[in-house]
This record gives sequence, structure tokens and C-alpha cells, in this order.
Amino acid sequence: MSDHPLPVEEGAHDRMLATVLFDALRAASQGVGTVGINRDSYGEGESEALDLVEDEARGLGLATERDAGANLVVTLEGRDPSLPFLACGSHLDSVPQGGNFDGGAGVVAGLAILAGFKREGFRPARSIKLYGLRGEESARFGKAYMGSGALFGKLTAADLAAKDMRSEQTLGDCMRAVGVDLARVARGEPLLDPKRVAAWVELHIEQGPVLTARNLPVGIVTGIRGNVRHRVVECIGEAGHSGAVPRWLRHDAVFATAELIAHLDQHWRTMLERGRDLVVTAGVVGTDPAEHAIARIPGLLRFSFEARSQSRDTLEAFYDLFVAECDMIGEERGVEFRRDRRLESAPAVMDAAWVQRLKAAARRLGLPDEEIPSGAGHDAAVFANVGIPSAMIFVRNGNGSHNPYEAMEIDDFVAGVAVMRAAIREATA
Amino acid sequence: MSDHPLPVEEGAHDRMLATVLFDALRAASQGVGTVGINRDSYGEGESEALDLVEDEARGLGLATERDAGANLVVTLEGRDPSLPFLACGSHLDSVPQGGNFDGGAGVVAGLAILAGFKREGFRPARSIKLYGLRGEESARFGKAYMGSGALFGKLTAADLAAKDMRSEQTLGDCMRAVGVDLARVARGEPLLDPKRVAAWVELHIEQGPVLTARNLPVGIVTGIRGNVRHRVVECIGEAGHSGAVPRWLRHDAVFATAELIAHLDQHWRTMLERGRDLVVTAGVVGTDPAEHAIARIPGLLRFSFEARSQSRDTLEAFYDLFVAECDMIGEERGVEFRRDRRLESAPAVMDAAWVQRLKAAARRLGLPDEEIPSGAGHDAAVFANVGIPSAMIFVRNGNGSHNPYEAMEIDDFVAGVAVMRAAIREATA
Repeated sequence: MSDHPLPVEEGAHDRMLATVLFDALRAASQGVGTVGINRDSYGEGESEALDLVEDEARGLGLATERDAGANLVVTLEGRDPSLPFLACGSHLDSVPQGGNFDGGAGVVAGLAILAGFKREGFRPARSIKLYGLRGEESARFGKAYMGSGALFGKLTAADLAAKDMRSEQTLGDCMRAVGVDLARVARGEPLLDPKRVAAWVELHIEQGPVLTARNLPVGIVTGIRGNVRHRVVECIGEAGHSGAVPRWLRHDAVFATAELIAHLDQHWRTMLERGRDLVVTAGVVGTDPAEHAIARIPGLLRFSFEARSQSRDTLEAFYDLFVAECDMIGEERGVEFRRDRRLESAPAVMDAAWVQRLKAAARRLGLPDEEIPSGAGHDAAVFANVGIPSAMIFVRNGNGSHNPYEAMEIDDFVAGVAVMRAAIREATA
Repeated sequence: MSDHPLPVEEGAHDRMLATVLFDALRAASQGVGTVGINRDSYGEGESEALDLVEDEARGLGLATERDAGANLVVTLEGRDPSLPFLACGSHLDSVPQGGNFDGGAGVVAGLAILAGFKREGFRPARSIKLYGLRGEESARFGKAYMGSGALFGKLTAADLAAKDMRSEQTLGDCMRAVGVDLARVARGEPLLDPKRVAAWVELHIEQGPVLTARNLPVGIVTGIRGNVRHRVVECIGEAGHSGAVPRWLRHDAVFATAELIAHLDQHWRTMLERGRDLVVTAGVVGTDPAEHAIARIPGLLRFSFEARSQSRDTLEAFYDLFVAECDMIGEERGVEFRRDRRLESAPAVMDAAWVQRLKAAARRLGLPDEEIPSGAGHDAAVFANVGIPSAMIFVRNGNGSHNPYEAMEIDDFVAGVAVMRAAIREATA
């Protein structure tokens, strides 16, 4: 292990592999005359990406296979192959007209690490397996983490019956077509025993602006935010003539909801000041086009509610405040807030030992060791929630993801790979 | 003049006339199988209503004519017909599927008063003319006060070119068809010299809930609220992943606008506490359906803005606060509020002497003399703004207007007529 910032030779190898492989992936998945990347989940573009990475891995002398979930698995055998293996990687699908790095970066990172270990003759204590996962994005079937979900027997019959918006093919059909053992998936049978996996380590571009804003090349992920949602909350007041009804007789759905959101914003700030992790969004808001008018007091406003946090306690505390504010403002203003079914997804906590290991590796490399929550969901959450110690490294990236304008610098990628490599080497020495 | 509450005999006559005439108007304008009233501005139903009231007036021995604006004019000649006359009345058109009393009540009230004076042989000092106006509602051509506007040369070429949403006929064509002297209207020539009109007195149902809430049968209108409006204000922030962007890096259009509206609500309350007349509405609010999503920080919210007041000073003071809040919140949150063209209509002040005369008449009749602003616009605002001393009496009415469920009690109507009669008698004795 090097005590010096960013080992020069390894960095040069990583840079070359990354440049070649990202270019090849881009060339394979970019439509003619478009800027976006198309690697549809369980579709042709995704399969081509798996083939391309597999060819590269074989060229580097690594053993490859496809598992029962039709994922690509690249193995560097350990000194004792009977030990639970260390898994790393990410997904190779993309949203339509997406970017080249969301998912792809984590697979290229894993391959760079295995290639480096192979090159220098490092033989890990336990095997290291790189996964090029399928089906992480929800864009095609409305369901996310299909690949990792299938690995651990988490897909339901309803999931498998979900249809591609355009072709009307079901997820099950598309999985079978690329070679997934659908019978086992349909039985909810795990394709991979969690006890066989010592850890999951995933590098991913940051999909938010924090690392850019803080001028940090990499960040160590502490947890993946879960959420509580209502698709639609209706604020039901009373419509009326905007000129003829004085304030004391109004039941204005817009003013009531504005007060609600302003109060939620205050509670949010208070929670942040107390060190809690929380983001709050009302992404869809609207009066009713069938009856709204400039000169009409709005009797109805619909809005969506979402709170996300790494902590289930924080989610529940904030949700309680939300309900209490609905009740109080409803009573004060003579309106009613009607919430549809509460939806939720559980937060996932990254493994504390792995977080420390990654932070220590970053410091040794002369890199900042900033902790950062993941707001977006990742396969790592699925691995973590079946009990596998999981960890993530974020790489700085401009312009978010799910669009063709992702802007990850190769220097930052190489820094992220160096941190990941050092931690994996330490854990498997 | 009686010192006793609600003269019994006059009241009985008013009640009978009102019952007969409201029933006849309803029967003439109610479509088969519908509950709503249809007296389209410058259309057939409106003309039938004018004919019906004219027949009734003639039957009562009153002189009738149509003026150059094709309005019905019923005259009780005064002792000196060369003096400026006192005008009263209201409009006979309705919105589609509207109610029987919005407009009609004021015409029936005027007829009841003239009939009473005729019956008892009261000869006023100056002539009293009842107007059954056409074209007050904006529903058909998107323009309000067409009838009173035409009287005073206020219609523009654009107004006359406005088209009926369904038939594609222009306002000008429809006016000509019912007998309006369109050449004079098109030249902007007044059809009635304001100097010939000593006063305008209009009874109307209240279109808001104030009299009902305060348990008052009638109210004396102090002024008609003007307004300042923006059809569309855009709050432009920055869209982003709802999970991946922390609060300090957000430019959330919904949270920014919620804060703006909450602040406007506070300013509004402060102004009310200081005795100002003001109502504030954001009737149309919405994120952009082309890009909004539950999991996306909204980068754009559009909303309408309207403030109404009887006082121009209050309107301007509140508008200044609105602009200042847009600027402050915009700077604080890194969003921009873009306002489209500012639209306004001037408030109209009711004549102070007439307000006092009506209040005194109400007190003498044992009725409450509560002052009330008119939030909705009325022909009275057009008369007032050409310099004619104008006054309005509101009658309690449930369920607002512009719908078939208007709920004016005949007892309240009779009380309103009594107040109006007493004041007109005093002013023309």
C-alpha cells in the first residue's frame, strides 16, 4: 500500500482503461444523431454493454460468467475460494436518453481494480467478484432494483407482470429473453445466498450537487435515504368569488397549503439544525383545471408529499409533524387535508466498519474523507437490507444524472477508484 | 314616509309583483330539463327578459322605451322633466346556467318602486328612470359592463370585435341585431350624457357570504373593489433529484412560492387589522405537467395573483409589498419571480351622501344599516366612474351567484326595496 497521494502508475492504468471502456460503452449505446445513452433494462443496449465489459475482462485475463440473474460476474479468485466473497460493481442499464456514467462508472471501477490486482499479482484472501448488474433503473418497467432484487428473491408476481410502457412486453418476458432463470425468480428463490457475500462495495457518480458545491472529488456514503410519500394530498376548502368573500369567511385551499408548506419548511430547518438528515419535496402541485380561475377562491389544491432521510426515526418524526400541521391548519382555516395511501421505502445504513475503512483509505491517499448521504436509491440498499455489509463511494459529477449531460471528470473517477482499491486491498489482504 | 318598520301595504304589493315577475323571468329563461337560467348577453333570452319586464311595466301604466343601447327604459315623469333624472335598475342578462336574481332583482326592485309611486300618486321632483340593462356579464364575450360601457362611449373596437365562444358572432354583430345604434357605439360616442343623470341607484344580491354570516337582510355598499392582477407569475427555480439535493443547494419553486403566499397572508392580516379593505387570491396554481414528478424538485411553479380593494392606495401599498417579497424571497432562495403584464381595474367609490341617505332610510325602517364593500364588479362602477353619484343596496343571498342555487329570500328582497324606495322618495320629494 502506498502512503503517497494517488499512486502514479496505477492511476495511469486506471485512466487508460476508463477512457477506452467509457468510450466503447458510449459508442455502443448512443443512438445515431442523439446525445443520450440508451441501455434499456433487460434490453438490447444493456446486453451489449455486458458483452463489451465481458470481452474487456477476458482480454485482461479475468474469468467471467453469467449468473442465474443473467448478470455479468467477473471473478478474481482468492486464496480460499470457500470463504464468502467480496462483491463490487454497479448496474449497466440506463434510463432512455440517459448518461454514460450512472451505473457504468461502478462497473468500470471494479474492472480497473481487478485488472490492477491481476497485473501486480495480488492474490486476495477471499475471492473478489465484480457484478455488472442488470435492471436497476425504474424507467422501463416502473420498478427499480430488479436485478439486485431478483438476486435475493425480492421480486413479486406483480413486479414480473409489469409492462414496458412502449412494447407491452412484461418484465418477466424480458428477463427470460436475456437468460434469467425465471422459474426461480418467480418462486421468490434467492439466486445468491447473502451469507456467501462478505461485502458489497459500489462506486457511483453523485446524482446531486453536493460534492461540486463543496469542491470535493469524492465522498464516502453513510446511508441511502428511505422515504415516506403521498402521491396525492388534497386540500379541500370552499370555492367562492375572489372579490366577494372576505378573509374571515374564506376556506382557501392555496393559502392553507402555502401555510402548511411554510411550516414544514420551518420544521425541516429545525431538524437540520439539530443534525438530522432530511429532505422534503412537494414536486407536483396544482389547482383543478376543471374549475380554477383567477377570480375564484380555490376550493381544491392537490399536491404530492415526500420526505427522505437516512434515519427511520427522523422520517417518522417529520411525518408526525406533517400530520399534526395538516390537522391544525385544517381546523384553523376550515379546510381538510385528505391524504391518499402512505407509501414508504426503508432507509439503508452503510456498514460502519466499511465507512471507516474507506475514509481512512481516502486520508492515506491525501484525499478528503467527507461523509455524504445518498439521496437517490442504489443496488447497495438492496444488498444492505438483506444483511450484507455494504459501502459506496460517490464521485463528483455535474448536472445530475438521468440525462446526457452528466459531467464526471476522469481525474475524480481515478481518485474514487484509488480509494475503493485501497479499502478492498486492506479488507482482503 | 313611514316611521314604522317595513310598511305593510307596500310590502304586500312588492311581494306580489316580485313573486309574479321572478316566476315569469324564470319560466322564460330556464331551459327544458335544466335548473339554470340562460339570458345570454345581447341574445334571445336577454331580449325576452326585457320584453317581459316591459309588458309588466306597461300593464302598471308606466311609459317604456328602448334607448340607443337597446336597453329597456321605464319612466315615471317628474314635476320638472328638464332636471337631470334619477336612474335606477340593474342588468337582465345572466351567465349560462346562472341564477334568476343576479341582475334581475335590481330591475324588479326598480319596477316595484315606480309602480308604488304611480299607485299612490307620488309625483317626484325629477323624473325617475328604471334601466333594464343589457350585457353586464363577461361570460359570453369575455368583457363585462358592455351595456353600461356603451352608454358612456367606453367600448373599444377590440371590445366590439370580441367573439362569442360558441357561435363565433362578434359583440358588435350581436348588439346591432338587438337594435343598438352601433355606429355611435363604434365612434365611442356616449349614448347618454352623464350630466343628464342625477344619480344611479342599484339593488343587487350579495354575491358573497357576508350578510348571511352576519345575519343581516340588507347591506349598504360603500364602494366597488378594484383590482390589480397578474394572470401568470412564474417562479423559476432549478429542478433536481428530490433525494440528492440538500436544502442549502435547493432552488425549489414550490417552497419559495409557499413562503411568498404565507408572507402575503401576513401582510394582508396586518392591513385588515389597520382597517384597510383588501382581499387577496391566487386562484390558479400549478407545477408544469410536462416535467413535474413526485421525486423531482420543482423548478417551475406558475400562479395567478389578484388583490382587490375599494381603495387605490391600499391596492398600491399591497402591490408594493408583493413585489418586495418577490425580490427578497427570490434573492434568499435563488429563484426568480417573473410577472406578466400588470392588469388593473379602478375601484369605484359610492356617493357618500347616498350612502348616508340609504343608511338613514334603513334605520328608520328598523333595519340594520351595515356598510359592506362590493367585491364583485357592477354597472354601478361604470356610472360612478363617469362622475354620476352612485349607490347600491345588497340583499342577503346564499350560495353566491353565477349558479342556479342563488338563494335570496323574498322577505329580504322586500326589505331592500323598502330601503331603496325610502331613499329615492327622500331624494326626489
